[in-house]
Amino acid sequence: MSASIQDAIMLLGDSLTQGGWEAHGFAQRLAFAYNRKLDVINRGMSGYNTEWIIPVFEQCFATQNEQQHVPKVRLLTIWLGANDAATEGTPQYVPLPAYSANLAKLVRTVTDSASAHYSPVTRILLLTPPPVNTHQWAAHRAEQNQTLDRNFEKTRTYAQAVRDVGKQVGVPVVDLWTALWDACGHVEEQLSEYLSDGLHLTDRGYAIVFDEIMKSVSENYPELHYDKLPPVFELWDKINLENPLSSLSKRDIFSSA
Amino acid sequence: MSASIQDAIMLLGDSLTQGGWEAHGFAQRLAFAYNRKLDVINRGMSGYNTEWIIPVFEQCFATQNEQQHVPKVRLLTIWLGANDAATEGTPQYVPLPAYSANLAKLVRTVTDSASAHYSPVTRILLLTPPPVNTHQWAAHRAEQNQTLDRNFEKTRTYAQAVRDVGKQVGVPVVDLWTALWDACGHVEEQLSEYLSDGLHLTDRGYAIVFDEIMKSVSENYPELHYDKLPPVFELWDKINLENPLSSLSKRDIFSSA
Repeated sequence: MSASIQDAIMLLGDSLTQGGWEAHGFAQRLAFAYNRKLDVINRGMSGYNTEWIIPVFEQCFATQNEQQHVPKVRLLTIWLGANDAATEGTPQYVPLPAYSANLAKLVRTVTDSASAHYSPVTRILLLTPPPVNTHQWAAHRAEQNQTLDRNFEKTRTYAQAVRDVGKQVGVPVVDLWTALWDACGHVEEQLSEYLSDGLHLTDRGYAIVFDEIMKSVSENYPELHYDKLPPVFELWDKINLENPLSSLSKRDIFSSA
Repeated sequence: MSASIQDAIMLLGDSLTQGGWEAHGFAQRLAFAYNRKLDVINRGMSGYNTEWIIPVFEQCFATQNEQQHVPKVRLLTIWLGANDAATEGTPQYVPLPAYSANLAKLVRTVTDSASAHYSPVTRILLLTPPPVNTHQWAAHRAEQNQTLDRNFEKTRTYAQAVRDVGKQVGVPVVDLWTALWDACGHVEEQLSEYLSDGLHLTDRGYAIVFDEIMKSVSENYPELHYDKLPPVFELWDKINLENPLSSLSKRDIFSSA
């Protein structure tokens, strides 16, 4: 069994988060950057919307009673909306007001001192869904003999809802919608540099996700930047060769926090 | 805090394991393949030998008392020797008999019912260190104005020791030394396809590591192959839309094991 030797970064979301474990995905990039400092726990569930993720999150995030035994989640990313913003009438669709309420509920699950899952050491980032490239996604759906079920304009409104919720609950927003929109020069077709099928991210798209997350960490939670954290176990060339055991105890890398 | 919602694969080792979080590294490949099934916990410590890793492992692997609270380690890879096999007199060097004894001790930490860390549900794989490309490593060391401290012949004997320990303690051996040696057509210089500097692995080298691990899992622990495990949380298109909550409970994916 794995002892709680490193605290964790938890990634909550849909397929965009699940795909973070691809080579060059944002989970892989975080795991590499935080190696020997924080573990990355991917709780991305392909196809899920905010409605379905709430009961899942309540199982994934430890209750106050459990918290003494398990790794502390130091950073939590909440990245949903790509499915909520599906066309009305499709099974994944969640109306905008319910989407906003669900995001706020996810945040309060962790931040509300009356919550069973209250965790004052957890820092949260809300991520906006990326813009959909309607042209690309339509072609992808057509190839699968399926009708178009997502579009650019709709994700724009869901991204705005995340910004509003962030202000309302006092949580920083990583605005991936805008970062990707700016990256493609505000030309929807050019999103194909960053989206493989109009919805999911390419390597270059994930590079922006990672960079924007780390920019927000630097601004909002600088103490959590990987550059500020020593490894839990000593670097090999600093081990005391006369008495190695004296160098080989786990360090509490958040002791000063 | 992260509840124990998924069991884990723990990777214990040196820089070859630590580097597993690179894009296309074997940790990334495992995390992708086991997404939503098992978490990957990387306990690779660059530069460490078996002597130094023992006290670290005893902190990383939960005691029997802790085990009820933390994720079960279903698969443990032990991959050391690249540093133990350094030249005699260098700080990382561990003599062959001590190396063998240390590997056996690491295994028994988990398998011995008298051990504080005894874990009968943990399946173990011992990995042999890769062959060193002496030519490539000598050039790399020269660039850093350092003397040559590893060579091909020495890693051959350390790889053989792993095979012997595996037999002795009854643990399957993933023979990466031989897999890489065969891949390069038994021409030391050709190892540069698989080693970036003569010691550490390239993408293609890590592809072999992942493939050989999965081949061994198929042969020795087929119940742990990712193809045999359902995701802990239901696939989105199987959620009961009339009553989503009924579909959204964590599944014990090892219940039949």
